[in-house]
Amino acid sequence: MSKADKKKAPDRMERIVNLAKRRGLVFQSSEIYGGLNSCWDYGPIGVELRRNVKEAWWREMVWSRGDIVGLDCSILMHPRVWEASGHVSGFTDPLVDCKKCKSRFRADHPDVLAKHAETCDGELTDSRQFNLMFRTFMGPVEESANVVFLRPETAQGMFVNFGNVLDTQRRKLPFGIAQQGKSFRNEITPGNFLFRTREFEQMEMEFFVKPGEEAQWYDYWKKERFDWYLRLGIKPDNLRMREHESDELAHYAKGCADVEYKFPFGWSELEGIASRTDFDLKQHAEWSKKDLSYFDEESRERYVPYVIEPAAGADRATLAFLVDAYDEDEVEGETRVVLRLHPRLAPVKVAVLPLMRKDGQPEKAQEIFAQLRPHMVAQYDQAGSIGRRYRRQDEIGTPFALTIDHQTMEDGTVTVRDRDKTSQERVHESDLLAELLRRITG
Amino acid sequence: MSKADKKKAPDRMERIVNLAKRRGLVFQSSEIYGGLNSCWDYGPIGVELRRNVKEAWWREMVWSRGDIVGLDCSILMHPRVWEASGHVSGFTDPLVDCKKCKSRFRADHPDVLAKHAETCDGELTDSRQFNLMFRTFMGPVEESANVVFLRPETAQGMFVNFGNVLDTQRRKLPFGIAQQGKSFRNEITPGNFLFRTREFEQMEMEFFVKPGEEAQWYDYWKKERFDWYLRLGIKPDNLRMREHESDELAHYAKGCADVEYKFPFGWSELEGIASRTDFDLKQHAEWSKKDLSYFDEESRERYVPYVIEPAAGADRATLAFLVDAYDEDEVEGETRVVLRLHPRLAPVKVAVLPLMRKDGQPEKAQEIFAQLRPHMVAQYDQAGSIGRRYRRQDEIGTPFALTIDHQTMEDGTVTVRDRDKTSQERVHESDLLAELLRRITG
Repeated sequence: MSKADKKKAPDRMERIVNLAKRRGLVFQSSEIYGGLNSCWDYGPIGVELRRNVKEAWWREMVWSRGDIVGLDCSILMHPRVWEASGHVSGFTDPLVDCKKCKSRFRADHPDVLAKHAETCDGELTDSRQFNLMFRTFMGPVEESANVVFLRPETAQGMFVNFGNVLDTQRRKLPFGIAQQGKSFRNEITPGNFLFRTREFEQMEMEFFVKPGEEAQWYDYWKKERFDWYLRLGIKPDNLRMREHESDELAHYAKGCADVEYKFPFGWSELEGIASRTDFDLKQHAEWSKKDLSYFDEESRERYVPYVIEPAAGADRATLAFLVDAYDEDEVEGETRVVLRLHPRLAPVKVAVLPLMRKDGQPEKAQEIFAQLRPHMVAQYDQAGSIGRRYRRQDEIGTPFALTIDHQTMEDGTVTVRDRDKTSQERVHESDLLAELLRRITG
Repeated sequence: MSKADKKKAPDRMERIVNLAKRRGLVFQSSEIYGGLNSCWDYGPIGVELRRNVKEAWWREMVWSRGDIVGLDCSILMHPRVWEASGHVSGFTDPLVDCKKCKSRFRADHPDVLAKHAETCDGELTDSRQFNLMFRTFMGPVEESANVVFLRPETAQGMFVNFGNVLDTQRRKLPFGIAQQGKSFRNEITPGNFLFRTREFEQMEMEFFVKPGEEAQWYDYWKKERFDWYLRLGIKPDNLRMREHESDELAHYAKGCADVEYKFPFGWSELEGIASRTDFDLKQHAEWSKKDLSYFDEESRERYVPYVIEPAAGADRATLAFLVDAYDEDEVEGETRVVLRLHPRLAPVKVAVLPLMRKDGQPEKAQEIFAQLRPHMVAQYDQAGSIGRRYRRQDEIGTPFALTIDHQTMEDGTVTVRDRDKTSQERVHESDLLAELLRRITG
């Protein structure tokens, strides 16, 4: 980042956080009690935005393909799952304490340690491994036999159900299993708004392939997933693919790449695509003593499939779409805040606005509002000048605003205002629904 | 229940659980590790069924109305929330232990205690209060300052955000806030498949009204919520409304009623509708020292709104729709298992089946499959006799099956088979999409 960029960056992020709070996209969790660190609540507008992000992913990954099925596993899983996966022994961060000021730091973050040394001359303890999984106790007795973890990822749910899917869905390789759901990580240093939180929503897919075919499918999924963000409107300049160096890879991995987004706080991971070999299935087969192999009827071979895993975060993706859409421009001599969201992602698709609160315009507007509402998220607004009402919709990214005016009462046409161009055109009310649906999904 | 019903009941439930496992609706969580008590995973078919139940609720409660907004709060909330709500002190079950066999029981379940006395002569301990909230520790140190709870209900998220919604959404009373999401209760005796689980998904709405208007809105929501299940196909004979006796009511409640479903294991609660007065908002106002009142511009009064709360369970609703839809009849001399699900709820809307694997029929079927897939969940199947393929779709409740046969290749018509009537009619491929959409949403 250049110096000028650095100066601009926090301002932009702050403005987005403020807009999110002011317009009901995102609130701090338990705010009236002072908030809960790094936990966030999606407000009436934000909940629709994230729903749309998740729905776009599910539509793309499950419904519109023939080779991926969905799954929804419980957050609480058998503790052995996390022993087999390696999370109990290896999902840790190294921590040190300052003996003087009692602060706690990541031992592997030299910049944080250096900053501490500037303000305190306390000695640090040796570093200890701290497991990032949240623990809780199931059943009425708190004893170790009942310890369960909040899952730190959804992926293991797909691996432990691989046999169930094979047995019930009559699938041939290659095929995938997709899941969306909450995961929890007891991060030492959460932060950057929705970017790194202790409770977050994942969108993961495990694609099972014949060993030897993993390289082509790894390339395929890298391209697919990168393009998904572009198709939903992310600016190409703000997106890049970063292939991991070989010393970053887990011992079993054949490759890993991150889709990165240029956030105001720097390039950061949106999604990881990993070529994981047969590591996960073999681990679970060994620990559970269950057969998790696949019989290939064409080649008459039995083998454990290899896996390609695109793992995305719903909250990170929502933040990226929000940041990317945030814009300020000048309209009629005034600065306008506008979210240029893809119509598919926009929380509200259309606003219905009577120009005047008389001459039957509110009644006509309510009539049109009632017609559209079963088909798309719509808002009705009759308070304030038409200019102010447009601005309110621009701020939450509503792509279309309909104005019902005196001409509507005469010829049945309404004006359709385009959020991005701020231009208007008249459409007859009988064509409205089809026209709006075409523009939203087209 | 009559004796004959009792004998039949477990069989029917068992057959439904078996179907759920065999066809990929519901698997036991972590099954390869012996399962995790009372936790369930939704398989490829079940995940779509529950998605449809949740979507139908959201559509009804949020999108198609003008007076309810959505919200999605974090599962982890500030611990003070649960002190204010009364859950820390009062969300408990009384437990006793047997000093001899070490078993643990609900002290308020005399039938369970009597059953124990038949098999063991051990003395019971005094009863103790056991809190049902799951506890975990946030941040790297396990000490009491960091204890947080997994929410036992989503409702408190709406109450603590009442001010945020008021400030940002320009709403006038009456209006509601709706939320769907996971909750957790450390039940002593979970059971009955999806009915009582320790991790479950709620669909709750808080409707805020002017004090004095609560009676009419209580009646309104009882009727609305009862009718919702009927509109989605629940048989009227299997649904009833049970008004609570006054000695069942919480001290602050003005009324409470349960929508009950006649499960094979007996009439059980699907959803509760409660008239909660201003209890929750006043508690949070007191504990947080924040003003949670509303200024009524019409009457120029300031007051704390009263609340009507319809609280449903997504898993219970899914189970009820599944149980209600399960049927066995006779088709062509054979017993057929069929899920008579409402088309809106059906996991798969349409199956595309080439009659023969030759003469261009599979290619034509794939072409039609590709056309329909972007608009509805569809399956392609060419394996086995056409009769067997119909049965497979009947078992998962697919309302329509298309067969591509020799006549299709000549005149472009396909047969559309109706799951319930098992009758067929020919529809031209150019009319298929519109016709199917009409039947699914109509």
